[in-house]
Amino acid sequence: MKQIRIGLVGAGVVGSGLLQLLEKNKHIVQNRNNLDIQLTAVATRTPKRAQPLTSLPITSDVLSVTKRSDVDIVVELIGGTTTAYDVVLSALKNKKSVITANKALLSEKGEELFRIAKENGVELGYEAAVAGSIPIIRTLRDGLASCEFEVICGILNGTTNFILSQMESENWDYSTALKKAQELGFAEADPTFDVEGIDAAHKISLLSSLAFQEKVSFSDLQVEGISKLQSVDISASKNLGYRIKLLGISKRSSAGILTKVHPTLVPLNHPLANVMKESNAVFYKTVEAGTGMITGKGAGGLPTASAVLSDLIYYSSRFGVAGSIPENNIFPKSKKSPEKENEARYYLRFSTLDKPGVLAEIAAILGKNGISIASVQQKESEKEPVNVIVVTHSAKEGNFETSISEIDQMSSIIKEKTVAIRLLENL
Amino acid sequence: MKQIRIGLVGAGVVGSGLLQLLEKNKHIVQNRNNLDIQLTAVATRTPKRAQPLTSLPITSDVLSVTKRSDVDIVVELIGGTTTAYDVVLSALKNKKSVITANKALLSEKGEELFRIAKENGVELGYEAAVAGSIPIIRTLRDGLASCEFEVICGILNGTTNFILSQMESENWDYSTALKKAQELGFAEADPTFDVEGIDAAHKISLLSSLAFQEKVSFSDLQVEGISKLQSVDISASKNLGYRIKLLGISKRSSAGILTKVHPTLVPLNHPLANVMKESNAVFYKTVEAGTGMITGKGAGGLPTASAVLSDLIYYSSRFGVAGSIPENNIFPKSKKSPEKENEARYYLRFSTLDKPGVLAEIAAILGKNGISIASVQQKESEKEPVNVIVVTHSAKEGNFETSISEIDQMSSIIKEKTVAIRLLENL
Repeated sequence: MKQIRIGLVGAGVVGSGLLQLLEKNKHIVQNRNNLDIQLTAVATRTPKRAQPLTSLPITSDVLSVTKRSDVDIVVELIGGTTTAYDVVLSALKNKKSVITANKALLSEKGEELFRIAKENGVELGYEAAVAGSIPIIRTLRDGLASCEFEVICGILNGTTNFILSQMESENWDYSTALKKAQELGFAEADPTFDVEGIDAAHKISLLSSLAFQEKVSFSDLQVEGISKLQSVDISASKNLGYRIKLLGISKRSSAGILTKVHPTLVPLNHPLANVMKESNAVFYKTVEAGTGMITGKGAGGLPTASAVLSDLIYYSSRFGVAGSIPENNIFPKSKKSPEKENEARYYLRFSTLDKPGVLAEIAAILGKNGISIASVQQKESEKEPVNVIVVTHSAKEGNFETSISEIDQMSSIIKEKTVAIRLLENL
Repeated sequence: MKQIRIGLVGAGVVGSGLLQLLEKNKHIVQNRNNLDIQLTAVATRTPKRAQPLTSLPITSDVLSVTKRSDVDIVVELIGGTTTAYDVVLSALKNKKSVITANKALLSEKGEELFRIAKENGVELGYEAAVAGSIPIIRTLRDGLASCEFEVICGILNGTTNFILSQMESENWDYSTALKKAQELGFAEADPTFDVEGIDAAHKISLLSSLAFQEKVSFSDLQVEGISKLQSVDISASKNLGYRIKLLGISKRSSAGILTKVHPTLVPLNHPLANVMKESNAVFYKTVEAGTGMITGKGAGGLPTASAVLSDLIYYSSRFGVAGSIPENNIFPKSKKSPEKENEARYYLRFSTLDKPGVLAEIAAILGKNGISIASVQQKESEKEPVNVIVVTHSAKEGNFETSISEIDQMSSIIKEKTVAIRLLENL
């Protein structure tokens, strides 16, 4: 039986989960993979959680683990981009493969870290960094290795999907749903990273680079979160046959690659529409295999730890052996497809004054900008603002920008800024 | 760049697809995987389809390919269990890894073939054998390598899923939907293999063995197809909030492993219910990662060929190299969990005579056998038989068998044999 010695850095929710699994699933790893994974070092700044789960001494000197001769693979689970960066860098330079769940680190410093891994002939595995227990990295890299990707898009943040699900099922407004998510531990005290789409943006940039084999920089991403959504948008969308999801979307066209994170109206019969609560999902479209989707638990200690352990098994079994081909993570920079030229359909909610001629003025501006209306909905209302909800046909995003900016300046008819949410493109 | 030389045996729909992809996606394979896959031999008994797709000479001597010194991996795509068996056996004995899409062969002769592969230090890859383009083998083996499986179940046959989808959407009876499937090339002239669940049974036996690491023999499977379903069952299920799917199901309990193929009432809000037409899907439940699902195209030339090529890339890149751990495909025989002890809920359609007391007699027999009724539906009807539709609570399968057999013998009230379809267990 092959023996691999690992050093764990970080013993929070996921790290503790891994400590549990290393013990509980030892027989699975041994029997199924003919592999004996031995934990030889643990470092954490919060030893309390780890202590009951290991008999090893626990050090707070996180860098020491990366230099030990009895460690073959370092598992980095501290998160963040400062200490974690030092740990991963040091491990790679000491010719140790690294397994990490740190999407922020890879999204921001991946280019450098993957290069250093390559220079040192080691691997940097990150299955657990995207979509928790869903094995999307292996799916893109191995399962669909032969496929030419056209689109990859997904529900990549469990917190926002939970909030959106609750807003719909409980008819809550955004802040009530956020508060509930915080109480249940699905959202941080400062939820910005999740609710403003930054976490999803880190993840789609990683998936996109892997699918298209061109580096999609985080800074090239157009990112929009869910914090401005109101319950009226959730319910009006539902009545129109859609469910709002925060999607990370990346698509290739002849103009380049366009990668975005934004709330999206997904048709109720699309598989992404039915991924609820804290679940994650990744949908793909390829030339050869058509469309497909993979869904599962996107967060949580044990689910994410299971992805870390699967990654450990994978690299332990198959890599660092003579004759194998190292994984490629270094891609040429992608050409960004211009956003304004992108064709999209929109849900537009105009908050208008209650007076004659409003709809005519809005329709005139849309028409002037080449935007054709697919449906209009205005319900009788006793108080202002009156919601006029328009679903459009496809037009260039730049034209929407121009129209909305023009309409929002008309204080004679508009009371609050227009809410504009894209519809899912035809996938 | 690593060079791998392959010999292709069989150039039907999938084989021709592979010939196209080897050409069209050569750059993807090279750039993404640093791998040059060279076709060095083609054998087929129907050379006409292959001729325009390769400049190589085409031989009809299929065994010759397995013996050539310029072939590293043999791709077997002829199907069936006779010639294909000879080809795979000969290749393995000549120490060549084999990639196959042949579920029937592996289901029937897998035990022997995997053993011979192991003895010869080569690999036998079969990603394309289950669920077409869906990378379920890689997902079970690598992506979820650390997980303890509780249930694996899926829509594994595109033909039957297409027929069921059409029966619902077009309100067709079974024979009309089958005829349409045959016209569109989704069903064979003799559809037995698909519609009686045999193909799905081959596939679930392979998945089950891999997930539970215990061999589930084809002969241990309880297999029931869709040919007896009537459109009234499709529509009545829908009214009750379910959609009928042909599922392959395998679940582990303390009593052993129970593996079955049968039509199943799936709640409409379950992800499996929304996998329509010729798509396939595999749903899993694990201790660590909870539930998840992977879906995509389950058949077709290019989708299946893409799975063959992904498998080729995988084994070419990572295997047959010093230090790697060979994949394990040899499992101890599973203990079969007794069917009659399994708890299930049922949809029962009794075809009764139109006379008083019928429901009372049926209910009495069910009650006597410990089967409790959850709902009853009987619509006014002008002609016999009158359909009495009962959905039950959970009870032992053996009790259902006893009850139905007793009821069906009561010619005083029953006109046709009772239709009994299981509900999806709580997953």
